[in-house]
Amino acid sequence: MIRNIILKDNERLDDLEIKSFKLFQNKDMFCYGVDAVLLSDFTKAKADENVLDLCTGNGVIPILMHAKDKGNKFLGIDIIPENIELANKSLKYNDIENISFICEDIKKLKSIVKSGEYNLITCNPPYMVDKSGYKNKNVDKLVARHEIKIKLDEIFDISAGALQTKGRLYMIHRPNRIPDIMYLARKYRLEPKRMVMVHSMVNKEPSMVLIEFVKDAKADLKVEKPLIIYKEDGEYTEELLKIYNK
Amino acid sequence: MIRNIILKDNERLDDLEIKSFKLFQNKDMFCYGVDAVLLSDFTKAKADENVLDLCTGNGVIPILMHAKDKGNKFLGIDIIPENIELANKSLKYNDIENISFICEDIKKLKSIVKSGEYNLITCNPPYMVDKSGYKNKNVDKLVARHEIKIKLDEIFDISAGALQTKGRLYMIHRPNRIPDIMYLARKYRLEPKRMVMVHSMVNKEPSMVLIEFVKDAKADLKVEKPLIIYKEDGEYTEELLKIYNK
Repeated sequence: MIRNIILKDNERLDDLEIKSFKLFQNKDMFCYGVDAVLLSDFTKAKADENVLDLCTGNGVIPILMHAKDKGNKFLGIDIIPENIELANKSLKYNDIENISFICEDIKKLKSIVKSGEYNLITCNPPYMVDKSGYKNKNVDKLVARHEIKIKLDEIFDISAGALQTKGRLYMIHRPNRIPDIMYLARKYRLEPKRMVMVHSMVNKEPSMVLIEFVKDAKADLKVEKPLIIYKEDGEYTEELLKIYNK
Repeated sequence: MIRNIILKDNERLDDLEIKSFKLFQNKDMFCYGVDAVLLSDFTKAKADENVLDLCTGNGVIPILMHAKDKGNKFLGIDIIPENIELANKSLKYNDIENISFICEDIKKLKSIVKSGEYNLITCNPPYMVDKSGYKNKNVDKLVARHEIKIKLDEIFDISAGALQTKGRLYMIHRPNRIPDIMYLARKYRLEPKRMVMVHSMVNKEPSMVLIEFVKDAKADLKVEKPLIIYKEDGEYTEELLKIYNK
């Protein structure tokens, strides 16, 4: 199929390498990385489950999950209008009907979604609390990386409200935030049930952590074996190649 | 030096394999394992720092730390009289003067130690909340493994009271309790600052976790590279051999 593709300045169309799905990105804005790929792989979603994606950016997580035949309907939300514009272009290009995107402040979500409406939530939030290096970045990258527009406490609060009992939240974050994450999860009764540490190499400290939370579940965390990105020779591990569908 | 050794029924004298230190144990009671060795290695203690060891059992952690020239004075506390009897026999046998042991309920510690008296605390607590398998175990093993006489909440509460500002708590525990640990640590302002996952083998889930907490510190956890116990051939890794002083 040949499509008319209109790319604005600095926009590009990237191949997601799953079936023929593609994603519009703007190279001056926050582009998806291995984090989004790992989170969409880590997230378990049955064919009849509805998914809310917080901090959706250009919509990569719902689109990747849809491409992998996970979940039913998706709603992605982001505060940056240019992100939602890109996300909607990708929906149109890929002929996807079961994903919607809205440009809104997540903090207003309580007036948009019903309490307990969702089976599951995905979130690749801004990782950093500190405000170092603010001046040299554009607004989109700042909002994507630093807790400016949304704080972790608010993400847990909003997730707990939107999820039904036994509903699941899937998050990727930095290991240095684990104490904040665990404290807030318990505060909002989103119990951490499964955790995977992500290491660039087997003998290095972890650079990311994947966590599944279950609303109102009993306390008992299963820490799974670590996920290693690169082999000693610098090539992707077998596990990563599988996640990347290669 | 030849000593008179009086071993009661079921008692044994084990070589700690550090200098010539030995430890009295009772084979019918809880005997120390790799947990105690790892915790004493993970714990950092300067020569002028005073150490409180909670749930000391037969005193293995203070004795190992002393053998490794860590810390100044030590106080070990345990609720089982037979444990303290063994611990005191080891002190006498090894001619150790800077360790004391008391048989007491840790919950009464507030009336024994002054608030903020200690530079650091070590604790290898009972790991299990659940009460499964109670009937087949003796009282000592039950108390050592299950939260019967002391709960994690109380350990953090008591530790926070006994530590000075910026004092450190070192703990080994099971990874499934990480959410409880992180929540309680934050509750009692003992901030998790350093964490090491311990894996039996490199491609397995972690079986233990080592954590350093600092009283009234800023939130920012450093998760270090994993500690692996066995190589693929079943032999100890180089790192473990070093910890075991071999």
